[in-house]
Amino acid sequence: MRILAAQVNPTIGDLSGNTRKIIDALHRARRQKIDVVLFPEMTICGYFPDDLLLDPSFINQIEKQLDVIEPETKGMFVCVGLPRKNQTGMEKPLFNSAAIFIDGKLSGFKDKTLLPTYDVFDERRYFEPGAEQLVWEYQGKRIAVTICEDVWQHSKSVGYTHYRVDPVMDLVNKKPDLVLNLSASPYYYKRTDVRLSTFQAVAKTLKCPVILCNQVGANDQLVFDGHSLCIDGKGDLIEIAKGFVEEDLVIDLSEPKKVCDAPQGDLTDLYSALVLGVRDYFQKQGFKRAVVGLSGGIDSALVTYIAKDALGAENVLAITMPSRFSSKGSVDDSLSFAKGLGIEIKNISIEPIFKEYLSLLEPEFGGKALDATEENLQTRIRGMILMAFSNKTDALLLNTGNKSEMAVGYCTLYGDMAGGLGVLHDVTKLHVYQLAKWIGLPEEIIQKTPSAELKENQTDLDLLPPYEILDPILEDYIEEGLSVEKIAKKQGQSVKFVREIIRKIHSAEYKRRQAPISIRVTQKAFNRGRISPIVQKWR
Amino acid sequence: MRILAAQVNPTIGDLSGNTRKIIDALHRARRQKIDVVLFPEMTICGYFPDDLLLDPSFINQIEKQLDVIEPETKGMFVCVGLPRKNQTGMEKPLFNSAAIFIDGKLSGFKDKTLLPTYDVFDERRYFEPGAEQLVWEYQGKRIAVTICEDVWQHSKSVGYTHYRVDPVMDLVNKKPDLVLNLSASPYYYKRTDVRLSTFQAVAKTLKCPVILCNQVGANDQLVFDGHSLCIDGKGDLIEIAKGFVEEDLVIDLSEPKKVCDAPQGDLTDLYSALVLGVRDYFQKQGFKRAVVGLSGGIDSALVTYIAKDALGAENVLAITMPSRFSSKGSVDDSLSFAKGLGIEIKNISIEPIFKEYLSLLEPEFGGKALDATEENLQTRIRGMILMAFSNKTDALLLNTGNKSEMAVGYCTLYGDMAGGLGVLHDVTKLHVYQLAKWIGLPEEIIQKTPSAELKENQTDLDLLPPYEILDPILEDYIEEGLSVEKIAKKQGQSVKFVREIIRKIHSAEYKRRQAPISIRVTQKAFNRGRISPIVQKWR
Repeated sequence: MRILAAQVNPTIGDLSGNTRKIIDALHRARRQKIDVVLFPEMTICGYFPDDLLLDPSFINQIEKQLDVIEPETKGMFVCVGLPRKNQTGMEKPLFNSAAIFIDGKLSGFKDKTLLPTYDVFDERRYFEPGAEQLVWEYQGKRIAVTICEDVWQHSKSVGYTHYRVDPVMDLVNKKPDLVLNLSASPYYYKRTDVRLSTFQAVAKTLKCPVILCNQVGANDQLVFDGHSLCIDGKGDLIEIAKGFVEEDLVIDLSEPKKVCDAPQGDLTDLYSALVLGVRDYFQKQGFKRAVVGLSGGIDSALVTYIAKDALGAENVLAITMPSRFSSKGSVDDSLSFAKGLGIEIKNISIEPIFKEYLSLLEPEFGGKALDATEENLQTRIRGMILMAFSNKTDALLLNTGNKSEMAVGYCTLYGDMAGGLGVLHDVTKLHVYQLAKWIGLPEEIIQKTPSAELKENQTDLDLLPPYEILDPILEDYIEEGLSVEKIAKKQGQSVKFVREIIRKIHSAEYKRRQAPISIRVTQKAFNRGRISPIVQKWR
Repeated sequence: MRILAAQVNPTIGDLSGNTRKIIDALHRARRQKIDVVLFPEMTICGYFPDDLLLDPSFINQIEKQLDVIEPETKGMFVCVGLPRKNQTGMEKPLFNSAAIFIDGKLSGFKDKTLLPTYDVFDERRYFEPGAEQLVWEYQGKRIAVTICEDVWQHSKSVGYTHYRVDPVMDLVNKKPDLVLNLSASPYYYKRTDVRLSTFQAVAKTLKCPVILCNQVGANDQLVFDGHSLCIDGKGDLIEIAKGFVEEDLVIDLSEPKKVCDAPQGDLTDLYSALVLGVRDYFQKQGFKRAVVGLSGGIDSALVTYIAKDALGAENVLAITMPSRFSSKGSVDDSLSFAKGLGIEIKNISIEPIFKEYLSLLEPEFGGKALDATEENLQTRIRGMILMAFSNKTDALLLNTGNKSEMAVGYCTLYGDMAGGLGVLHDVTKLHVYQLAKWIGLPEEIIQKTPSAELKENQTDLDLLPPYEILDPILEDYIEEGLSVEKIAKKQGQSVKFVREIIRKIHSAEYKRRQAPISIRVTQKAFNRGRISPIVQKWR
């Protein structure tokens, strides 16, 4: 039996485009004499369409695609993911399903049983759980079809929910010869190991091969890494698709296979996720060009480098915008860095406009001392200039803030927070350093003391602890959910010190709510994955 | 039996402050010889704390408040709302519960059975449903305790979910003499009628009095209107608390009561909701002062008026910021309007700064024609000036955009979209007109042709259909969820015309994602209530 896991990159709501990808894959499958084809979860509409699911015409149009796909499945067993109507009329209006085609006929549906409703997932908003585990017979083999989360309870690696049901255990008595899993399992840093061990546990329990087809591509905040795979009945990995690109993973169950290693490379994956996050945000919206403010610092240099890899150097415009507080190094480093990458760069001083604001506002402020107001003015002038280029040249502004800054609110609304996409909003400063070294950014940029350069001799240390101290606390609190006391103990800091940082995180919620969407690359990103009230007195 | 529904205004996460309010109400109850006291849903932490619920120390601290409350309940039957641990360890970690105290002892809990997970509600993210309906005996009466949504399935007026269970029908055999309902039922325009008929249906089915205690106050986007009430066993309304203020609603079941009318006044309620939304956003965060950009148009005049009522005229600073394109009327009307309200107003021309931007950018733009870029510059200069005053004077900037503009993206990021709170983001332009007339804004402001005044002779009609045509289409699509075809037919417009407006709604999602939070006053507000992908090709 020859199986194809078609690791495709769908666009949300592009029903005809996604169906085209399905049919193209079926044509390739036929040419390669494939028996079984599986696609990712919600192939037809892309994962995840949010409240488009509540539009009845959206669901109708999705179901119509089944008629287009059906004749193309002749001679094969094909699983395609889609949301479909819950005809019982009870509870939620939809199921998250796999349509099963056998030899050119729609044979039935498998409905997802475990519906993630935590972190960035919101499936109980729309879906009813499928009641039972189903097995189809094809070419003498008993094929079980599962959807993403259905197999995750088995490895006890699901967050925030301890499902009552373990569909994998329910399958034991059904004695499948093969388990297929349609997934939209998003990337996060070091996730691939967890996913691999989950699928290995399933194969060991059911003593049969398990094949995962995972979505690839970025949709808004989520990046799907692909890495579709096949585990044999002993629990060994025997095939794995590339990450972050579309690929046909072909598995021939009749041929003996060697055990293969999972690809290593945490930083490679992290970098690839960021590049794909940027590329898909642009391509799927039909944008070609990006504009970036290049400060001479490490964050904006990294974003520019990512933009070049995602969009091509010719599609990136960098702008350096010095003020009276900018060091000569900042401008020179920006110019030579952009030149080195083959990126156009403009040098526009904000001084004339800054002076104009000061002379306009000084009399209004009645002699009050300079403070954050004037610092914010500078960064907002930069934001406005960048947005003017964005508007005039039909380019999207990439935001260059990092997760450490976003966490504690070390950023200015409508200033350095401007932009369409927060490329590094889920990357802590320490990870920015790691990535910068890994891709080989110039030493003078990496070594520069972090500074917003909004007043004389300013550095990030004026307001923040060193990132070596700050970042582990942020990770412990945001990603691990540890208590103040545990963090203090683990990091060797006082409870008071940790509490003050956590207070900053909560106080900055109002800023983050107006931030551009970010590319999620950790297990806990701000906004969609971490819903937080603005007005609250808990911290 | 004398009953008190303590309609309190909790602050999210202010556990000791909210507990103080509970104990104060219990003291008042004792003085008034009350037998039964009920509070709103999630009284101790406020509704809704979002992911604070995932912090174990938050839940522990909430449970500790029960020890503080317990001794204060001597001689009474008391129901207090709170989230509590799901000790079974199965599925979700919490229940949304009512703690039942009888005569100074915690007697048990009633867990909410129906968990809204649609629109702005996300309860399945955190909670397991309670399994059964419970009745407590007190002073010879059988008292059933329910929580908010538990009674709504009975009137079939729940959105997006047709619950399998109807707790009201489950209560029929338990023959309660009295039903209590702890709620956090948010306001929206014309909602009070639906709520009343729901509770009437419950009373008629169970043939006993039903008492609702509803939360009052605004928490982030949601405004809770209170309007706690009592329906008698025949289904007649016999008591109803005031809306939008804290109140003790006292009901004596032994005294015969006259049927009373539900208070009428849709615009009164709408206006009160907006004022309360502003006031609580400020007070609960500890802010006193607001700044507003006053353009001479109707939206900013209405917001200024609301701010005056919410915060006091002495706490509002208005700024009018004319440019070369501003009519004399705009400035004069702004000055006299502010003066009339007793509000300080500053007149700051944006011309010098606008000229400076133009002379800086013109050479960079290489002779390209003036376009939206230069229009956006003007509104962004205004945003920056307003934010400078916000920073310098510790005042929050109120945003003045309306729902019609936000829907179709007729607004500028970091410009007229700046601010901490979108006061009118859920109020269509036609409702703005209604409110303006109702509170008596000056005719010259009401009659003025809507214009952004960003170029010569500009009016909103250059880019938008008249609001009389636009707004009903927006309501049909956003609030009613009607199909394109139905809207076209209903509104007498072509499908193409309606489709183009809907396309604009979807295209503007990226702007709305960076908008300040808004005050929700319709059944379908943007953002939390209407989750939409940015990158998608459905429309």
